Amino acid sequence: MQENVKKLERLFPLLKTYFSPKVIGEVNDVFVKVTKTLGQDVPWHTHDNEDELFYIVKGSLVMEIENEDSFELGEGELFIVPKGVQHRVYSDEECWILLIEPKITKHTGDVESKITRSIEEQL
Amino acid sequence: MQENVKKLERLFPLLKTYFSPKVIGEVNDVFVKVTKTLGQDVPWHTHDNEDELFYIVKGSLVMEIENEDSFELGEGELFIVPKGVQHRVYSDEECWILLIEPKITKHTGDVESKITRSIEEQL
Repeated sequence: MQENVKKLERLFPLLKTYFSPKVIGEVNDVFVKVTKTLGQDVPWHTHDNEDELFYIVKGSLVMEIENEDSFELGEGELFIVPKGVQHRVYSDEECWILLIEPKITKHTGDVESKITRSIEEQL
Repeated sequence: MQENVKKLERLFPLLKTYFSPKVIGEVNDVFVKVTKTLGQDVPWHTHDNEDELFYIVKGSLVMEIENEDSFELGEGELFIVPKGVQHRVYSDEECWILLIEPKITKHTGDVESKITRSIEEQL
């Protein structure tokens, strides 16, 4: 099974589009995804029933949470957006993110935007 | 919610015991845990119904899978042990691991050993 080892730093350069998470694995009912971000194209959205884990592999990401001051997530930092919480993210530099979220999670919630994609695209 | 940001490198020094995973978060039905390993105390075991994700934050870990050659996981590498697969891990140097696994996962499966712990201990 050694062929299934994922070296994260080698995966991100394979991503051709920003804000377009790709599945790299699954742990029962959750998908493990990689995505890279640059800019401000993510709309405010909510996942009514799904928590969403962000782990920053490289760069930094600004996390905006409704009714709170925004804050920055840096390399090696992990944050879980609880279900039902309105949020938005952006990054001024390229940011590499590992996402863990239930398989049913739509990455922009019920908000349709130009970055909205299929939830099951494989890398 | 900024207080919920977890900087992983700051969490591992808080672990007092090797092979004793602690919960740092949850994403719906899975727990996010941190554990550090040193030595060979993990017995061969299987999780019949749960996949188990290993992400190496620091150091390296040898992964043994039944009927396969063992292989090493290094820093920044991620590997998912599929449900039902007999496995064992060891490390010759201290290794810091992020684990993602269903909440019902017992870390040594149904094998009782000296490292067996409650599955819900918080950091």
